[in-house]
Amino acid sequence: MALFFGQSTDSVPSDWEAVCARRKRAQLDSIPKEWIIQLPPKDQLNVMDVPHQCGLLTELELEITETIDVQTILDKLRLAEWSSVQVTTAFYKRAIIAQQLTNCLTEIFVDRALKRARELDEHLASTGKVVGPLHGLPISLKDQFAIKGLETIMGYAKWIGRYAESDCVLVGILYECGAVPFVRTNVPQTLMWGETMNHVFGRTLNPYNLAFTPGGSSGGEGALLAMKGSCLGVGTDIGGSLRIPSAFCGLYTLRPSYERLPYCGAVNALEGQESISSVLGPMSNSISGVKIFTKAILDAEPWLKDPLVLRKGWNESEYQLSRHGGGKQLCFAIMWDNGVVKPHPPLHRAMNMTKRALKAAGHKGTVGFRCQWSGDRSNVSSLQVIDWENHRHLEIYKNAETIFAADGGHDYRSQCEGVEPLIQTMSPSTDSHENALDEPLVKSLVGDLYHRTAHEVWQLHTEKRGLRKSHLDHWQATVSRTGTGRPVDAIIAPAVAYTAVPHGLNTDSFYTTLCNALDYSCSVFPVTFVDPKIDDPHPPHRFYNHEDEHIYKFYNSDLFPGFPVALQLIGGTQEEEAVIGMTEIVADALKKLNDTA
Amino acid sequence: MALFFGQSTDSVPSDWEAVCARRKRAQLDSIPKEWIIQLPPKDQLNVMDVPHQCGLLTELELEITETIDVQTILDKLRLAEWSSVQVTTAFYKRAIIAQQLTNCLTEIFVDRALKRARELDEHLASTGKVVGPLHGLPISLKDQFAIKGLETIMGYAKWIGRYAESDCVLVGILYECGAVPFVRTNVPQTLMWGETMNHVFGRTLNPYNLAFTPGGSSGGEGALLAMKGSCLGVGTDIGGSLRIPSAFCGLYTLRPSYERLPYCGAVNALEGQESISSVLGPMSNSISGVKIFTKAILDAEPWLKDPLVLRKGWNESEYQLSRHGGGKQLCFAIMWDNGVVKPHPPLHRAMNMTKRALKAAGHKGTVGFRCQWSGDRSNVSSLQVIDWENHRHLEIYKNAETIFAADGGHDYRSQCEGVEPLIQTMSPSTDSHENALDEPLVKSLVGDLYHRTAHEVWQLHTEKRGLRKSHLDHWQATVSRTGTGRPVDAIIAPAVAYTAVPHGLNTDSFYTTLCNALDYSCSVFPVTFVDPKIDDPHPPHRFYNHEDEHIYKFYNSDLFPGFPVALQLIGGTQEEEAVIGMTEIVADALKKLNDTA
Repeated sequence: MALFFGQSTDSVPSDWEAVCARRKRAQLDSIPKEWIIQLPPKDQLNVMDVPHQCGLLTELELEITETIDVQTILDKLRLAEWSSVQVTTAFYKRAIIAQQLTNCLTEIFVDRALKRARELDEHLASTGKVVGPLHGLPISLKDQFAIKGLETIMGYAKWIGRYAESDCVLVGILYECGAVPFVRTNVPQTLMWGETMNHVFGRTLNPYNLAFTPGGSSGGEGALLAMKGSCLGVGTDIGGSLRIPSAFCGLYTLRPSYERLPYCGAVNALEGQESISSVLGPMSNSISGVKIFTKAILDAEPWLKDPLVLRKGWNESEYQLSRHGGGKQLCFAIMWDNGVVKPHPPLHRAMNMTKRALKAAGHKGTVGFRCQWSGDRSNVSSLQVIDWENHRHLEIYKNAETIFAADGGHDYRSQCEGVEPLIQTMSPSTDSHENALDEPLVKSLVGDLYHRTAHEVWQLHTEKRGLRKSHLDHWQATVSRTGTGRPVDAIIAPAVAYTAVPHGLNTDSFYTTLCNALDYSCSVFPVTFVDPKIDDPHPPHRFYNHEDEHIYKFYNSDLFPGFPVALQLIGGTQEEEAVIGMTEIVADALKKLNDTA
Repeated sequence: MALFFGQSTDSVPSDWEAVCARRKRAQLDSIPKEWIIQLPPKDQLNVMDVPHQCGLLTELELEITETIDVQTILDKLRLAEWSSVQVTTAFYKRAIIAQQLTNCLTEIFVDRALKRARELDEHLASTGKVVGPLHGLPISLKDQFAIKGLETIMGYAKWIGRYAESDCVLVGILYECGAVPFVRTNVPQTLMWGETMNHVFGRTLNPYNLAFTPGGSSGGEGALLAMKGSCLGVGTDIGGSLRIPSAFCGLYTLRPSYERLPYCGAVNALEGQESISSVLGPMSNSISGVKIFTKAILDAEPWLKDPLVLRKGWNESEYQLSRHGGGKQLCFAIMWDNGVVKPHPPLHRAMNMTKRALKAAGHKGTVGFRCQWSGDRSNVSSLQVIDWENHRHLEIYKNAETIFAADGGHDYRSQCEGVEPLIQTMSPSTDSHENALDEPLVKSLVGDLYHRTAHEVWQLHTEKRGLRKSHLDHWQATVSRTGTGRPVDAIIAPAVAYTAVPHGLNTDSFYTTLCNALDYSCSVFPVTFVDPKIDDPHPPHRFYNHEDEHIYKFYNSDLFPGFPVALQLIGGTQEEEAVIGMTEIVADALKKLNDTA
């Protein structure tokens, strides 16, 4: 994630704030009046309970939106126990509640979504058949996925009034699958932040504590899903943008490898940058949501519509861990600390819990997949956990950040130029257009910003390939330590070194960027919540760098109570199915641990 | 293929010719004295018969080297009917004959190869088991595939004396598969030519006529395989470098999609250029050679050693055309003319022959796969042939050539700088360091050479993605014309607009570059030979451009007698298995047509 941009833009017209305010008003006008709620008192920072308290949702709407397992919702839709109009209305109302509390949405198009839901209901009633595997399901989309006839503003004032002439490939496939795209969600200007704020739609807040960020860049999705204003959303990730908000908001996600899922027709930052590609992926309150989305899209043969997508459909055998000994004996490695930024105490506790859960589950031989596992549920006989040994992390980080900065910030500046100022910090306490960064690690790694030549970019690629080869060999060499006859099956690591932080404080993204640089497929899964009674500060360690010290120092167990703590599960390149399968095993083990605690 | 480089290098030391001559002498010294043959008279331009005439090969060695089907050789090796030492010696002797006639080799390492062959024989004798699927088979390699302890000069004087510290991934896998890498083969300086000449090893000649080029850049492989000095070779392709020599020398090849086969550790031109990636592929006198190589490498799970390789093993079901209606009804489209350069008359005849062969085979319902086809051999019931409609070819060509030239020739110049002059033309009749090109089409498309910025490269990528999407949609839309319920299964097109040409005349590479730009997997298959009695010149057409006119005018049926005429079969991205399967069907149909003629 690029956290520094060099000089700010010049020549911004004086009315840029009015232009943005006008668009924001139009958004407010798109909310049905009867869905406006009474806001809680200003000093109520945790708003997670408001959907229950505010009285807008019926009993059925509460039941629908609190059904965590996406498969259950799909089953009820298929059996017409719930209509798509009912389900879409329920999630839409809750999304609008979330919007009023956290400012998580961009495009709101209630009539259009309900019309679509009605058509699906009629189709089911008249034919007795569902349209596809996502029949009737409302799905939220990050503000990049173009829908015909709607704007896709993606946080840039200049993009106001750009109406899409066609659906992007993903949206087309979602329609084919029977889904109901129903809202689009907020992003940061430039997309290259782990927080979510832009001049058009403003800042998105974390519903666990409004003074905190939900993360970014898919932060609108994070806040929306945390409030259960959607059961399945789609975000994107080039340096952690799916995983940071999922970790900060207690969600599941999958960051697939480059070009596994269809990005074609979606808008993007750094358009045409292919050195480390942005990818799209699902975010959900359940791992079943992650699996259902991934399988539905891959089953639709997306390579017939997006020329960049790999010709590799959903592989059930890989999901059943055929390349991991059938899942009978697995060996995970824990990355306790990446050697760049030491994780805060709750993360350390979450890794310990996961280790304990896996060992317990393995010994008892009772762990199986949570959803739609067609094999023997007791086939996991052994779950080993060893320590991961770090390998060339700083070199990988430096290479990736240099690639992101290869155009010297040209793309960011040109999108803002003549329209709005470039945002230089996410901190609410300073002017966001002044560069307030105190020599972040990324700047010391990348050095001065300048626009690189094609030849220089090719040298970065050569270096990148060397690092990927070296890291792959390092991983393969773990075969000597696992006892399974295979290298480590997956790595368990923090997704971010901390839980959600106050706005402006999220600077580290290396635990996530590592996987973008190496193109390892990976998931995020929630483990526990910060508990001030047990998550005491650790004694100071020998700091790796200035940023590590800064991050260490702002930890205070009283600051973070109740925030979700999540981890990352890292598999090999293009191992999406196996990563989902292994995440189910880990989630099951954790559930058992919690149930017996 | 970049055919122009801007200004030539300065400051070349005066002894560069001596440096190259010394290395060339060392190559000559590496040939066993007893394998030196009496050369045919200077005016004998076709040397295809020399291996038979020269007396160096025994009856058995002739039998071995003239066994076209690679599977037959492997079977005899497995059954110990032939030892690997026998087979390797036979091909090595014939390769050295080819070297003396066509100058096709670079690295010669007889003792090392025979030692390896002996070890394999001993392994088989003592264990009764083969080491792997390529047990005992000698394989030739283009001068990019590093072998530990050997130089990889790749046509650059500067690279003399660079000894590899480890095997590239491909070579490592070939060893695991039991193969015997036995020679490396010549390339042009910079690799970016469709001919084969450099200052270190000189020019490679076409054994059908020594005044003609075997093509390039895998031209050493082309000449070697045409003379049956190898039964299976490995080349690379970024704009046609596998397909041009295969077409000019009457061979089969497969250009797989980006990152399907492991390139890691091989040296390359434009190192780090990832916009249009070079790929490696097999070249062989039989389609069985192409299939055996591809399957063996994919079965070895190359993604565990090369982080860029797709996690997609050999897919038998795709080979059996599961995505093409099980191969029962196929519809091919013929690209008679790409609208940029009109093919010479023999190419036109070859397309007509192929159309006739397919229609005949389809109607009779008797075509099946030639090798290892486990299904019903008579399951092809219908082979339709329609005309391909061209789509945005010049835009695609311009985008690709601009990408290849994005560094303004920096890479080529810096590899030569201070050591040798940059080669500017492949013509033997002018000084090869003077730019003798008469405004080629590529130059008019790309414009003046200059070094582009990262942002400019990203714009080229955006344009490229748009073109790929547009072309894919165009292909998918053929579903309305095929009558099979599917889009066209494959396109049949020339690989080059002409058969092999005199040295210096090969300027067009668009029929091949189209597939690199769009990343379509494709094969080349031989169809017939130029027949001066029937391949009369066509009347002049309205020329598309200066180059088209030039190419039209040099056709003269008397110039090309007996040269192989080959075509290209183009499938979708990452459809390697299906492309091989469909090439087998086409080759079978052509064989039947020839048998009944």
